[in-house]
Amino acid sequence: MSPGTALARGLFDRLAAETADPPGVTRVAYGPGERLAFAIVAEAACWAERVFDAAGNQFLTLPGLDRSREIVVGSHLDSVPHGGNFDGAAGVLAGLAVQADYAAEGERPPFDLTVACLRAEESCWFPSSYIGSKTALGLLDPAVLDVGRSDSGLALAEHMRTEGFDPDAVRRGDHRLDPGRIVAYVEPHIEQAPVLLTEGFPLGIVTGIRGSFRHREIVIRGEYAHSGATPAALRRDAVVAGARLVAAMQDAWRRRLAAGEDLTVTFGQFSTDPAQHAFSKVAGEARLCLDVRSESRATLDAVQAEVAAIAATIAAEEKVTIDLGPLSGSEPAMMAPDLVRRLEAACGRSKRMASGAGHDAATFALAGVPSVMLFIRNENGSHNPDEAMAFEDFDLAVHALRRMVEGFAA
Amino acid sequence: MSPGTALARGLFDRLAAETADPPGVTRVAYGPGERLAFAIVAEAACWAERVFDAAGNQFLTLPGLDRSREIVVGSHLDSVPHGGNFDGAAGVLAGLAVQADYAAEGERPPFDLTVACLRAEESCWFPSSYIGSKTALGLLDPAVLDVGRSDSGLALAEHMRTEGFDPDAVRRGDHRLDPGRIVAYVEPHIEQAPVLLTEGFPLGIVTGIRGSFRHREIVIRGEYAHSGATPAALRRDAVVAGARLVAAMQDAWRRRLAAGEDLTVTFGQFSTDPAQHAFSKVAGEARLCLDVRSESRATLDAVQAEVAAIAATIAAEEKVTIDLGPLSGSEPAMMAPDLVRRLEAACGRSKRMASGAGHDAATFALAGVPSVMLFIRNENGSHNPDEAMAFEDFDLAVHALRRMVEGFAA
Repeated sequence: MSPGTALARGLFDRLAAETADPPGVTRVAYGPGERLAFAIVAEAACWAERVFDAAGNQFLTLPGLDRSREIVVGSHLDSVPHGGNFDGAAGVLAGLAVQADYAAEGERPPFDLTVACLRAEESCWFPSSYIGSKTALGLLDPAVLDVGRSDSGLALAEHMRTEGFDPDAVRRGDHRLDPGRIVAYVEPHIEQAPVLLTEGFPLGIVTGIRGSFRHREIVIRGEYAHSGATPAALRRDAVVAGARLVAAMQDAWRRRLAAGEDLTVTFGQFSTDPAQHAFSKVAGEARLCLDVRSESRATLDAVQAEVAAIAATIAAEEKVTIDLGPLSGSEPAMMAPDLVRRLEAACGRSKRMASGAGHDAATFALAGVPSVMLFIRNENGSHNPDEAMAFEDFDLAVHALRRMVEGFAA
Repeated sequence: MSPGTALARGLFDRLAAETADPPGVTRVAYGPGERLAFAIVAEAACWAERVFDAAGNQFLTLPGLDRSREIVVGSHLDSVPHGGNFDGAAGVLAGLAVQADYAAEGERPPFDLTVACLRAEESCWFPSSYIGSKTALGLLDPAVLDVGRSDSGLALAEHMRTEGFDPDAVRRGDHRLDPGRIVAYVEPHIEQAPVLLTEGFPLGIVTGIRGSFRHREIVIRGEYAHSGATPAALRRDAVVAGARLVAAMQDAWRRRLAAGEDLTVTFGQFSTDPAQHAFSKVAGEARLCLDVRSESRATLDAVQAEVAAIAATIAAEEKVTIDLGPLSGSEPAMMAPDLVRRLEAACGRSKRMASGAGHDAATFALAGVPSVMLFIRNENGSHNPDEAMAFEDFDLAVHALRRMVEGFAA
């Protein structure tokens, strides 16, 4: 285990203790937990130049041999309520560990090596994605400054001001990071599913962050009817229509996977109306929501058309209406192929994979900054106190990052 | 329109007005609405001998040429809260109309013709089925006397006593009707689905009352997981498993219908857990309920085995558990073939059909009393203020009943 990994391990313990909120940790965005985490990380990085931007993102820079460009390693330091200690923090502390190893050896990286501590990534606090990375690049929609935080109700701008930052400058688009100067944005992160664990890889190289489309309020309307007295031919059964929609999309997913497409299809909610349903009634209404993700815009577009066509067919056959409702979503963000190759070469045993969850790296990639993510094996998913990252795997990530950074010297 | 039908029409209007509880009518079992309805019917039947049994069922008998046996025409006079005016009452008033026609003509039926006004058929008042017909035949489980009414919380026995009847005698099994004396129990009733309406028949001859089995608390347990990050192969998706169960049972239903079996299959409820589900989570739990009905015990048994087998297959394939939970149900009750033929001959244009809903006739049939039901075309289902029976159809039913009763003279 490198000295940097050992330092990081101690900082993980401090973070867990000082932001504890049993079960798990709570690091409110622009609140006490996040503030504490920023301070703990900065205090450890005694070798670094420390800068805040107007939004309060914190940048800790270890000067490089060539100071005209920089490599940024980072992630966010907020957490969901009663979340785990590793989601976000692992990316920041992996970067810090690499800096610490350079510092311990008295060496300097080929370019400036900056650890970015980003704000407010978890969308549970403000109903907006990637506030930290967007403000870091001057890309935040100013309207977001006026949205309230879920616990306090106070506006983001007010919380920024309370923490000592400058929402008016954020509104003007002031920012510190210069995309043209960044050689690479690298975001280490625990994996949020058990793919690496199941397949026996300690590390994963992210090829792209899946985009999505969502129908969060699908409403199927048929007709309530007597379960014993109404024959099949006269039914307009919302549960049957919903079940057929789920099953048909499951089949479509399998076909596309077999054809090599990147895709996930999820109906996370399916509910008849508690005020009206009964065991002895054909269901007159059902509500579902659909979340579809892919690295490929073309796949997302094709599946969106397919859902609409399948829903129309089922609606006609079951004599119900299927209102897919509002559409929302996000763009896929491809990681830079050159960085994927460099990180892969630095990792040794690893798996190329898509990220199904969104991350700040998507903001960087969509802004044209060459970006890549490094997944670290993790049991039990994320956003819960049972996140379980082994420090042996974290240490492999630190060594891989160091080798990747060194690679830019060649 | 016969004089009896005209009388009945006036009584329907009185019932609607005097038990009005907008929207619709409310005739609480062993409460004011039911009491009023019993009085309105008895008052009109000035030709009849009136008897109550210990439970308060009311029997209005027009003496026949042969007084050693009787034909019983009847149904219940309670309603669901804010229900329709025809469910139950149509059976009682059809019998009364036939008596009125005999009385108007100064004729007598071949046997005693008794109109049975039964109590407490709607299971919304007491959590028990067919209290009126069971007490009429001395078949009520005495434990039911202690169950509380849904609105008052007071026990059935207490309500019987308040209405002036004798729950202790009911507990001993005292009853008035003698199954050995009954030539036929005939229950006219509005159809509770739009089959007659859709197929253009004014009347339906019921061949049997479907029995049922129910799994009212099916629980499917998988695992919550990230919708974007968890690949298909690692999912344990409760919604997918539930949807496949619904779809597979729908296919099984179609196959059995094509093979000529009598069957309905209904999943009236399907719900993920509002406390845990989210659009971005694979669902870790789903709850469903299943109601299966058939005239055939063999079909019910076969479908029960089929559900269990299909659930086991899906559980294994989707790596979830499917707990079908408690089983409840009722026995099919076949109508007497001789009475089916007699009623059909008396009806003219009519359709043979199963009753998917339960009725007091099931109690009579299962007690060995030759029984039959006559369905009258009805729009908009039952148990709601929009029940819509045309008096032309009711008049056809009255004439058919009269012809059927006359048939016993031959």
